[in-house]
Amino acid sequence: MASINVLKYGVSSPADLSPMKELRAAGYESKDILAVIGKSEGNGCVNDFSRTLSTHVWEPQIPESAVTIFSGGTEGVLSPHVTFIMRDPKPTGLLAAVGKTRVLEPHEIGTTEHALQVASSVRSLMDQSAIRKEHVHLVLNKCPLLTSAKVEVIKAASKTPVTTDTYESMAKSRYASAIGIAIALEEIEETQLHEAMRDENRWSSKASCSSGAELEDCHILIIASNPSLGNLRAASAFMADAIDARTIIKILDQIKTEGGHVLQVFAKAEADPTGNIRQKRHTMNTDSDLHSTRHARAAVGGLIAGLTGDTQIYVSGGAEDVYQVHGNQQPLFALLSFVC
Amino acid sequence: MASINVLKYGVSSPADLSPMKELRAAGYESKDILAVIGKSEGNGCVNDFSRTLSTHVWEPQIPESAVTIFSGGTEGVLSPHVTFIMRDPKPTGLLAAVGKTRVLEPHEIGTTEHALQVASSVRSLMDQSAIRKEHVHLVLNKCPLLTSAKVEVIKAASKTPVTTDTYESMAKSRYASAIGIAIALEEIEETQLHEAMRDENRWSSKASCSSGAELEDCHILIIASNPSLGNLRAASAFMADAIDARTIIKILDQIKTEGGHVLQVFAKAEADPTGNIRQKRHTMNTDSDLHSTRHARAAVGGLIAGLTGDTQIYVSGGAEDVYQVHGNQQPLFALLSFVC
Amino acid sequence: MASINVLKYGVSSPADLSPMKELRAAGYESKDILAVIGKSEGNGCVNDFSRTLSTHVWEPQIPESAVTIFSGGTEGVLSPHVTFIMRDPKPTGLLAAVGKTRVLEPHEIGTTEHALQVASSVRSLMDQSAIRKEHVHLVLNKCPLLTSAKVEVIKAASKTPVTTDTYESMAKSRYASAIGIAIALEEIEETQLHEAMRDENRWSSKASCSSGAELEDCHILIIASNPSLGNLRAASAFMADAIDARTIIKILDQIKTEGGHVLQVFAKAEADPTGNIRQKRHTMNTDSDLHSTRHARAAVGGLIAGLTGDTQIYVSGGAEDVYQVHGNQQPLFALLSFVC
Amino acid sequence: MASINVLKYGVSSPADLSPMKELRAAGYESKDILAVIGKSEGNGCVNDFSRTLSTHVWEPQIPESAVTIFSGGTEGVLSPHVTFIMRDPKPTGLLAAVGKTRVLEPHEIGTTEHALQVASSVRSLMDQSAIRKEHVHLVLNKCPLLTSAKVEVIKAASKTPVTTDTYESMAKSRYASAIGIAIALEEIEETQLHEAMRDENRWSSKASCSSGAELEDCHILIIASNPSLGNLRAASAFMADAIDARTIIKILDQIKTEGGHVLQVFAKAEADPTGNIRQKRHTMNTDSDLHSTRHARAAVGGLIAGLTGDTQIYVSGGAEDVYQVHGNQQPLFALLSFVC
Repeated sequence: MASINVLKYGVSSPADLSPMKELRAAGYESKDILAVIGKSEGNGCVNDFSRTLSTHVWEPQIPESAVTIFSGGTEGVLSPHVTFIMRDPKPTGLLAAVGKTRVLEPHEIGTTEHALQVASSVRSLMDQSAIRKEHVHLVLNKCPLLTSAKVEVIKAASKTPVTTDTYESMAKSRYASAIGIAIALEEIEETQLHEAMRDENRWSSKASCSSGAELEDCHILIIASNPSLGNLRAASAFMADAIDARTIIKILDQIKTEGGHVLQVFAKAEADPTGNIRQKRHTMNTDSDLHSTRHARAAVGGLIAGLTGDTQIYVSGGAEDVYQVHGNQQPLFALLSFVC
Repeated sequence: MASINVLKYGVSSPADLSPMKELRAAGYESKDILAVIGKSEGNGCVNDFSRTLSTHVWEPQIPESAVTIFSGGTEGVLSPHVTFIMRDPKPTGLLAAVGKTRVLEPHEIGTTEHALQVASSVRSLMDQSAIRKEHVHLVLNKCPLLTSAKVEVIKAASKTPVTTDTYESMAKSRYASAIGIAIALEEIEETQLHEAMRDENRWSSKASCSSGAELEDCHILIIASNPSLGNLRAASAFMADAIDARTIIKILDQIKTEGGHVLQVFAKAEADPTGNIRQKRHTMNTDSDLHSTRHARAAVGGLIAGLTGDTQIYVSGGAEDVYQVHGNQQPLFALLSFVC
Repeated sequence: MASINVLKYGVSSPADLSPMKELRAAGYESKDILAVIGKSEGNGCVNDFSRTLSTHVWEPQIPESAVTIFSGGTEGVLSPHVTFIMRDPKPTGLLAAVGKTRVLEPHEIGTTEHALQVASSVRSLMDQSAIRKEHVHLVLNKCPLLTSAKVEVIKAASKTPVTTDTYESMAKSRYASAIGIAIALEEIEETQLHEAMRDENRWSSKASCSSGAELEDCHILIIASNPSLGNLRAASAFMADAIDARTIIKILDQIKTEGGHVLQVFAKAEADPTGNIRQKRHTMNTDSDLHSTRHARAAVGGLIAGLTGDTQIYVSGGAEDVYQVHGNQQPLFALLSFVC
Repeated sequence: MASINVLKYGVSSPADLSPMKELRAAGYESKDILAVIGKSEGNGCVNDFSRTLSTHVWEPQIPESAVTIFSGGTEGVLSPHVTFIMRDPKPTGLLAAVGKTRVLEPHEIGTTEHALQVASSVRSLMDQSAIRKEHVHLVLNKCPLLTSAKVEVIKAASKTPVTTDTYESMAKSRYASAIGIAIALEEIEETQLHEAMRDENRWSSKASCSSGAELEDCHILIIASNPSLGNLRAASAFMADAIDARTIIKILDQIKTEGGHVLQVFAKAEADPTGNIRQKRHTMNTDSDLHSTRHARAAVGGLIAGLTGDTQIYVSGGAEDVYQVHGNQQPLFALLSFVC
């Protein structure tokens, strides 16, 4: 079990490593980094090389066990930054565990076996860290995808890939990971695994999964909150739609009442696929100049930044990212600091 | 003097005239239209033909004296719609007056003479309508610009254009109009006119000016609020920056306290030219794929739509538009309905 | 039968009607217009309102029987313009016929019946006009699509739409039209109609089909070339890929040899879906900032404009447009003038 | 003096180092690299991180003395690739020299002193390498720019920066470098240096200059051609406008006649600032969705790729780049191989 602290710093470009200095000035060492979670300033879509550049410069700086997650797209008022999840020697109220599954064979990616491996790893991470499932607020997961080369390997071995469409494999892999997390957290019963995999419509309220071509196992970061242990806490909620200010204000009012403040917000923004928000047409899905995820991040980012007074927040969207979305709800996850 | 009502309707495309039917169903006739103010779904920049298309289909539908203002760009959650400023037979609390200056000679555009003509027209409109300057909340103004052809005409007449740069002439023309309005409303003393024109840094808190190639005089719409006359009112304020939720919440709280509701919000969004918001870097000015005005409308639109619960709001930005911006303040103007 | 002439003029905006004046100055009247085919300067994608604007301003100017086709997108060196297909009292060597099918019931759109109606109309147009199929070079076709409203109508009538996906219905409708044209021109035998409709992989070398929400029948324009009748001719070919300069040069060399010159070129540009051109990777399909059709029009437009020395050429691409593409071939169609 | 060979290879992403393997397979070692010149697949504008990523991964692979130049933007048919300028033990007909100026003080950037330092370095490189000025075809130059930090340093030292606008400093620095090159190559007389610096309208037909924040001296690569020494050659020309196929065809015809083939083409593409090409309007400068440099690269790239049959060509444009443009001429530079 690791107690953790949360720190964040602005960056002047996707290649800016100056937060390392600020981290050291704050009394931390790079060996204590469990995760670096950043917003970089690309388009957050297929040809976003800001994300790749950030990953490229940060990975040599951090322990091999640490996880990096870079999400492109700081539309509107959003400000490029990195958030550090840092091991802390003293109890803080926030706990984390980091680990990996075994390497997945190409033909296992996106399958029931993939889900089982994730479930098993999440469970054993919670056991080893004495994290109880009711305290878990977020399970970040990075999982592999099928490249054309991997599809060839599978076929050469006379096996069947979950799909031959490499883009679709990203979603399949994220879904298998999310189902694995839901099983470990007992949101879904393990006996329902096969049904859940077929269904493609289940979800975990805690899972945040992304897939990438650069890894062959699944990387897992669990964040839990036990307020009895310190002054940091996690909170989570769902915005009912992209303009649901009420849900955000409710959380912020409670924090204010209790004398706390927000360390970081993680949110997911998506253009409502029906083309409407509260029965009024939006144009995010019919704009051929600007991807809907850019529209959505800008709008939801504007709302949350306005309400928190902070533009260094993590708002991500679309395929390259993270949360399991249920219907049109926009997941929201916050890390908070309170005076004990 | 005309008492006015305010109605708004969604549109399915920039060419959608169905709001005319809804207007009639609400008991109004096209002859009562004083202004049509719409958000259309283009990029709101130079090559935005959604705006032209809307203007093209709407102008034949309305009285010749009526004003149309179409602002392109419904980024993020914003919903395409038109707002009607309608003459109302009974007192409503909101008053409007519509008029025009004389045709401006090409060499007068953007000059002191231009400002004087606007000041004079605004004054006489207020006089004729018995609108008092302290009741005025908004003066919408459309003014001419210099085309290459007009620059040639000026030169052929051995006169001097205010600028030979047609794009710059748009700003010069808007500025002259705003100064004219400020003088009529006594925000600037008439004796300071020449200084104000030279200064280029004065502003009117009530002026909203746009320039267009399609007109040769200035069109003027004055909106005033006299709560003693009915249950409608206007309110205006300035957001201190693009994430100033507090100012919006303050107005909304007051409305709520008094049992009112918002009919329409008009706001201006601009990317802070310093590249920072509250000392944190934003990326709106360095994004070569996406114009800063699109970023800004999406973000500010997301915030106001979230707080009002309404996506059919008028958020505009950049050159094609309207408000005189002072420093980095983002003007905000609301039309409200209260139970009397 | 109508002998035709071909004229083209630049436009200063999608709403510019000044070519009407030039047409009259050239001795023509609007009643002689058989077709207006334009390139307008939008993005050529879903939210391209330049196309709508052009259609909106041009349709009141031309005979009801005339066809308008506006294709958005003048990327790179391409220059916005309109091409007129004009009825000419004297023989020119180029012939045209214009007509319509009966109104298609919503459930017929994209079906075998749709193909049969097109085939029948094309045949009777050729018969009436004494155009022989071996002289036909191009059959332009505009056909209806399924809107959500039409899908509801079909369901209410307990019938089955060809698809419930409105976007997909555009392709289905274009395909049915192209098969109908191929049958009329005997490129496909009528006995193979059902197989061809199922196959979805047949094509016509002469068909250029687009679908639009604004019509319920199919509009047809046939262009044929009979050099024995005058000094105008048509030529057609296929570029083997987007950089196949050789095919273009070959046509141009022949024209030069015979003392002719090019009146207009119509070409289709598409990003090779394999992601490669001659085994080298291109990035048109992975650019999330810029739609692949814009890339393709710019590149192919640059090549053809360079070789012809003319930037007012018609290069279109993607769904809103026209030619039946076979594999990765890029169809090319030219109207030429020769000294008799 | 170094005889050089020229090799080029496709890349699968801006981080792809696989060309190093191909280079070794071709018998070369990394120590022989004089320059890596690449086209990466970003937008080629301000927020192009593909360029930064390529620079980041390549610089550790090459000798410290070697020069890297990455130009973003592979619009249309252009294919991402890297070109190596390799030292060759045997005479090839192409010669190169690589070197640096001394570090420029911040206040010297963009000044006469900057130009003199470049002139002096180019001269001494030519002397050391026995390259005669009449054999020089291209002088690639990377030069520093003024960052906000550097402007502060200058002011703190009570000196005057050439400009306080960091973006403008890029142009000033490129201009000073180009003038320096022109003096060394005797295109401009040294006595005219001050006048040329003031004039801002001189140019070098051989200079290709870019400025970057990552360096404080000027990096110089000279490429010269002496056909008597081997079978490689350089050729250069100017396209009169963006559709000047004739100039390209003329060079290609000559190459064909002599039995040679093209190794690589370097070209510059810019949207004609008048808004016209051969009196016809283009829309590259009024497209707010798509930067004019992207339009221009796509169009000129389509033309050159079509004529050479090769999509791995270097077409660059705009500020991040290279050639000194004179009027609207589009410089073209080719490296060729002939059978001796």
